[in-house]
Amino acid sequence: MSISSMAFSIFAASKPFAMPKISERGANMPASPIRKLVPFADAAKKRGTKIYHLNIGQPDIKTPKEALNAVAESQLEIIAYSPSEGFEWYRKKIAEYYTRVGVDIDASEIIVTSGASEAINFVMNSCFDPGDEIIVPEPFYANYNGFSRSGNVKVKPITASIEDGFGLPPMADFEKEITDKTKAILICNPSNPTGYLYSKEELEVLKDIVLKHDLFLMVDEVYREFVYEGKEHTSVLTLDGLENHAIVFDSVSKRYSACGARIGMIISRNKEMMSTALKFAQARLSPPTLGQIMGAAMIDVPQSFIDASISEYDVRRKVCIERLKKMEGVTCPNPGGAFYLFVKLPVDNTERFCKWLLEEFTHQGETVMMAPGAGFYSSEGLGMQEARIAYVLNSDDLHKAMDCLENALKQYPGRTI
Amino acid sequence: MSISSMAFSIFAASKPFAMPKISERGANMPASPIRKLVPFADAAKKRGTKIYHLNIGQPDIKTPKEALNAVAESQLEIIAYSPSEGFEWYRKKIAEYYTRVGVDIDASEIIVTSGASEAINFVMNSCFDPGDEIIVPEPFYANYNGFSRSGNVKVKPITASIEDGFGLPPMADFEKEITDKTKAILICNPSNPTGYLYSKEELEVLKDIVLKHDLFLMVDEVYREFVYEGKEHTSVLTLDGLENHAIVFDSVSKRYSACGARIGMIISRNKEMMSTALKFAQARLSPPTLGQIMGAAMIDVPQSFIDASISEYDVRRKVCIERLKKMEGVTCPNPGGAFYLFVKLPVDNTERFCKWLLEEFTHQGETVMMAPGAGFYSSEGLGMQEARIAYVLNSDDLHKAMDCLENALKQYPGRTI
Repeated sequence: MSISSMAFSIFAASKPFAMPKISERGANMPASPIRKLVPFADAAKKRGTKIYHLNIGQPDIKTPKEALNAVAESQLEIIAYSPSEGFEWYRKKIAEYYTRVGVDIDASEIIVTSGASEAINFVMNSCFDPGDEIIVPEPFYANYNGFSRSGNVKVKPITASIEDGFGLPPMADFEKEITDKTKAILICNPSNPTGYLYSKEELEVLKDIVLKHDLFLMVDEVYREFVYEGKEHTSVLTLDGLENHAIVFDSVSKRYSACGARIGMIISRNKEMMSTALKFAQARLSPPTLGQIMGAAMIDVPQSFIDASISEYDVRRKVCIERLKKMEGVTCPNPGGAFYLFVKLPVDNTERFCKWLLEEFTHQGETVMMAPGAGFYSSEGLGMQEARIAYVLNSDDLHKAMDCLENALKQYPGRTI
Repeated sequence: MSISSMAFSIFAASKPFAMPKISERGANMPASPIRKLVPFADAAKKRGTKIYHLNIGQPDIKTPKEALNAVAESQLEIIAYSPSEGFEWYRKKIAEYYTRVGVDIDASEIIVTSGASEAINFVMNSCFDPGDEIIVPEPFYANYNGFSRSGNVKVKPITASIEDGFGLPPMADFEKEITDKTKAILICNPSNPTGYLYSKEELEVLKDIVLKHDLFLMVDEVYREFVYEGKEHTSVLTLDGLENHAIVFDSVSKRYSACGARIGMIISRNKEMMSTALKFAQARLSPPTLGQIMGAAMIDVPQSFIDASISEYDVRRKVCIERLKKMEGVTCPNPGGAFYLFVKLPVDNTERFCKWLLEEFTHQGETVMMAPGAGFYSSEGLGMQEARIAYVLNSDDLHKAMDCLENALKQYPGRTI
């Protein structure tokens, strides 16, 4: 042992708990509000309680068989890297899908990613430097917070109100928040967590703002197919004059009930942004090969698959809305898309209520799990009485889940009526 | 049209090229040095030239059949999200693999990621704030640069020399670079791009440094199984006293020739770092489900599969080294691991040379593609005469590739001898 390492050993002994520190951005990273109640749910299950999971957007619809068959029949001998931007044959299939739904996109305007999450990350890295700002109407998909923190991007929320059904806040609210650090506006259309479907007129308002201030308009369209009551989804990619401003995130997860495939995509006509995003894509080598094989097969799945999914979700949506509207003190908008409802409950605090549902409540041996609302807001103190409900169970189970909720609201010690 | 939007239209017309700007970190992000010659290769192929690809670490060994069979036989009806940290049954299998190779690791000390790339990203986000520094011996895996840029982490390189076979630079070189911003030292063992296998003694030196300065010691062990000439790989996880400091990145990509599975992992006993990394993992929901099914099946693949791979690579390694040593002016170390050689060539500039190989050279209608060395250095101006060779082709093809290189070195206008 050398003298220097001996000296060190004594030094080490004198501070036995020395330990390298984690980063501030890591410490400040929010835990997933959707997943943080999981330990309480696990404990409830161990006690034998059945839980209706309305807390997470994991559809129960079966993945189209064609997708898994395509993998089984692929006869790959080596599961090799794909190109960083995704296989060309898959990007051509994606373009085919978009053409079918009325959006004119070329394979070269698509980068395939490991889920829409990675798409958002690459775009954040490509468009923002640390300290830059992004404007997002709240409540918003909680992980936008996470992606922003990891890129040291500052989220400037604009609060949408449950009384307006979470429609687009007035243009003036946006203008007020724009600074020289603002680089983009981000919306989810239709929205996770509110289900709100932005109209073409609302998108035109956003178009005016981003053109005026030269911002990117980022739209998460992963729920694009899920619209109800004869409404129509307008893709931001169909708006003229936004070629350099519009960026879309999409994914096969919800449309084809294949969340575990981890196949998402960035779609944009802005060549500079896309070639920058490609550099981030190259650094991580490639998206999943098998997922792309599944993804290509999905595009040949008949439209009847998606139509049947939408009908099924619409039935569930109606079950939830009807039941919720009958519960005293509950506010439930009637949103036009996705498979979420964002409701206001007559309780002191939905995080406490959701935890209580898992820890102390049962109704005929069952309970319900929801995502507390506060995690979907960036403004401190908002959403404390709100919760997100994902209607991803069949109608019978949804009825039982609503039975639980109805009874719980009558028994919960922190109820406000 | 409202007056304000009319006013805007005039404004827009006056600056028709207005366009939102990409980020500085995006602009500064290096293009992959491994992939940037691809357009020239594509052009050569279109002209009918056969190219031997020694430029990328995509093994040609067949993926074990058991892996794809496991997917085909999985009878999944819904390809759902997995837990963010990976399925527990898969993490237990990984722990089983580690126990088998003498590393005592528990399933709770593993987070499954979309490739080792994502593992590095999560760890960077968890350990570094923008402006923090990481020390990396160079030449290093080029994408470490990319991950650092995307996290705004500053790479402080310490130059290893080809004359020493790229062994660990002296401790004093590390000490000189450590500031109060330094958070970690990162090595790849065995190394991509040099093939160098760090000895236990070298790891002990690094241990002393990181304990003294309270740094993380991050080790990319994705090539851990690929060691030659009876040498042994020492995992940093087997060193006492580094429980809170050691972080390992691993992957199934190379070991089981399944780069497209996109299954990597973070392994560490530092609970605070792991719970921080888990928050980043939660934000992206989950790693690929099918990849985990394959990954679990791979761990039951008989050791003979890996042994056969290693023997095959060893044969190829010897072919390359023997041929390279006979070429005038070529310096080729004899590294102990991975499947790379980092060589010095008698040319003015290897980037120019590699491009010339694709654009202007053929030998019997064939040419060879390598990765220019400069992209593996962070210090400006280094590696200009070096190149990385990945010996991922069979011996016959390698001989032909070496024929090309040998002839090219005699004809290249910028040769230095």
